[in-house]
Amino acid sequence: MTTQAELAKKGIISPTMRAVAHDEQVSVEVIQQGLSEGTIVLPANARRSLSSPRAIGKGLRTKVNANIGTSATTGTRETELEKLAAAISAGADAIMDLSTGGDLPDIRRSILAECPVPLGTVPIYQAAVQATERRGSIVDMTVDDLFEAIEQHLADGVDFITVHCGITLSAISRLREQGRVTDVVSRGGSFLIGWMLHNDKENPLYEQYDRLLGLAAEYDGTLSLGDGMRPGSLADASDRAQLQELITLGELVRRARAAGVQAMVEGPGHMPLDQITANVKLEQTVCEGAPFYVLGPLVTDVGAGYDHITGAIGGAIAASAGADFLCYVTPSEHLSLPTTQDVREGVIASRIAAHAADIVKGVKGAMEWDMKMSAARKKLDWETQIRLSLDPDRARIVHNRHHVEGAACSMCGPFCAMEIMAKHLGTTYSKC
Amino acid sequence: MTTQAELAKKGIISPTMRAVAHDEQVSVEVIQQGLSEGTIVLPANARRSLSSPRAIGKGLRTKVNANIGTSATTGTRETELEKLAAAISAGADAIMDLSTGGDLPDIRRSILAECPVPLGTVPIYQAAVQATERRGSIVDMTVDDLFEAIEQHLADGVDFITVHCGITLSAISRLREQGRVTDVVSRGGSFLIGWMLHNDKENPLYEQYDRLLGLAAEYDGTLSLGDGMRPGSLADASDRAQLQELITLGELVRRARAAGVQAMVEGPGHMPLDQITANVKLEQTVCEGAPFYVLGPLVTDVGAGYDHITGAIGGAIAASAGADFLCYVTPSEHLSLPTTQDVREGVIASRIAAHAADIVKGVKGAMEWDMKMSAARKKLDWETQIRLSLDPDRARIVHNRHHVEGAACSMCGPFCAMEIMAKHLGTTYSKC
Repeated sequence: MTTQAELAKKGIISPTMRAVAHDEQVSVEVIQQGLSEGTIVLPANARRSLSSPRAIGKGLRTKVNANIGTSATTGTRETELEKLAAAISAGADAIMDLSTGGDLPDIRRSILAECPVPLGTVPIYQAAVQATERRGSIVDMTVDDLFEAIEQHLADGVDFITVHCGITLSAISRLREQGRVTDVVSRGGSFLIGWMLHNDKENPLYEQYDRLLGLAAEYDGTLSLGDGMRPGSLADASDRAQLQELITLGELVRRARAAGVQAMVEGPGHMPLDQITANVKLEQTVCEGAPFYVLGPLVTDVGAGYDHITGAIGGAIAASAGADFLCYVTPSEHLSLPTTQDVREGVIASRIAAHAADIVKGVKGAMEWDMKMSAARKKLDWETQIRLSLDPDRARIVHNRHHVEGAACSMCGPFCAMEIMAKHLGTTYSKC
Repeated sequence: MTTQAELAKKGIISPTMRAVAHDEQVSVEVIQQGLSEGTIVLPANARRSLSSPRAIGKGLRTKVNANIGTSATTGTRETELEKLAAAISAGADAIMDLSTGGDLPDIRRSILAECPVPLGTVPIYQAAVQATERRGSIVDMTVDDLFEAIEQHLADGVDFITVHCGITLSAISRLREQGRVTDVVSRGGSFLIGWMLHNDKENPLYEQYDRLLGLAAEYDGTLSLGDGMRPGSLADASDRAQLQELITLGELVRRARAAGVQAMVEGPGHMPLDQITANVKLEQTVCEGAPFYVLGPLVTDVGAGYDHITGAIGGAIAASAGADFLCYVTPSEHLSLPTTQDVREGVIASRIAAHAADIVKGVKGAMEWDMKMSAARKKLDWETQIRLSLDPDRARIVHNRHHVEGAACSMCGPFCAMEIMAKHLGTTYSKC
């Protein structure tokens, strides 16, 4: 078995590399070089064939991930498949199945079967749920339980897995010394920290990182190095515990690259707006350009009910500073699991953030899209405006709400700035 | 008649200054000094008594404005009063009545009667509508028509008026020389430019600026110096036409201050994310610290249907760079006039942007609010979380959707990071 990164290092161009190069409108050499340097990942498990593979990283379009999944009390295979369909139709570039309720392998395999884009999971969720069922508690989970869950996910075809390898006893001691408002809000992180403290042992994902690399290499599973220490409130952002973990993740990125394993790095979280750019720059230096995958960031803690907006603000700033991959946040964040409609709203909000950033990143085609839209606006060409909207279905509904047949504009009626300017300034213009 | 700015210069503290100082939790001297320097405005027409006055400017909370109003084909007095109520209940700090359809004076007076916060208008809309009715066309409007509309609005009690005084023949010639994708998208700006080009005359609001200052001083109406040249597409942002107008506005700010008239400056518009901070800094230097009132900015042209999000991204960045006043954008922008629900969504999105900025601006109470929320989150205290949410009604609805009685968390069920950390790290925690 050979990973995409190893192929790239050998100068071999795979069909998947060609597919993503075509998707991005870049030369396949850009993909190959990024993969060989580790600044691009191409999450595509060797066991499955992705109909819409996506590359993530330097020089490429900012990607958007949608989290779905059951909890112990909410959701079924069917509800999550419905959310999957909604996320894909809204334009998600990747999906994560975060299920913790019901028949986890069955739900995961059902989602994998229908997911055209890269699918990610957090195997420790399954290991923790099963340890609770079989042994009574998460802290009774064995190291083998954890690695078995990881291997099962990879063998099923999961394209990228979140592994919280950077939570070390040293990072926990820094966490204690620091003191925090919200301690640890990463679910997988809390499972591991609970386990480590209860058993007084080092993090097995750190201690046995080579074992993890072996599994990842075998299936070409991309490691998404989790940020268990990510801040769960603005007050905790960019603190010593978070930075301690980041330093470790930087070292683990280098070891992954040496082993031919693809790796990206996860990032915050809750963060004051003026710290976001610094966090992105630090990830880029400390992790030597590994693709950066951020959750939000959420620029205030009080946006519950609207955290897709809070996250879009932070995501746009992060991506424009160089983050490569945005994990969406839905309007239900902090309150409940998302509905299908929430999934749709969350994906669109993150796509707005990603696209706004792609314009300033100079991503190919990004500014051209806006230019076409604005030209259509100038011409009052409503059909083209609707077609070029990020969500044409919604744009059509809103436009038709008040549109009067024959009127130039559904907003201003006869007092249309475009029309007046065209007349008096003599710029080209044609009424639709 | 004396304006709040003149009182402040004389060292007199008015009851309205005391009211806004109390609202902001700052000393009344901060308000008085800002008013006397012109870095703060307090839009409060001398003819009416505002139940909730608001100050706008340096060192104060970032404010949010909601536009409402009829068009020739949509909306009535009743629909707009309903939108007014929705905007106020969602937390808007100011309202603008942009009506162009129906009995304009009646609609305006009805809104004024019920509006507890500062109300703004764009008098040229009424002048243009009336010129069309009475004389056949906007270009047949007389200079006296325009000034009569302005005086009527001020005599009615309007607190701030948008006046596009910076559109000069010189700026129009720079616009022509520049060439743009979307020319001019300011409605009032297009009326004036059409009038100026058709009649081959200078802008009367520029040429007779002293006449305007006389009226503003008489009623203590705050001038909102409009940006008729604001970019209507990313491609047109920060161009020579826009900057030419800004330079003129800077000169007009100084003349307003000398006349004891309160003045703020309006800004873009559509703008790539990485130009926003520069635009705010330029306004601050060129307009010598006059409060900056931005529309959006919208960080992409393709967000139709979701421009409240596009605008929240730009607004958060602008406000964190120093903008003082955010004009909301609703989900219907570019497509239709907003519904009452759109008004609500628009206000909340802008409030998120304003608050995220206030945290990094160091506005009193901003970070404290987030700290309280995060402490409640740590304690799994749902009632406090809901109460501290930006929109408690919505937060409650979303939380109750999946909440299981007795469960710690409506998202993670038994696998709650907060609970696990409290147990293993020994941090304080009490189940709600």
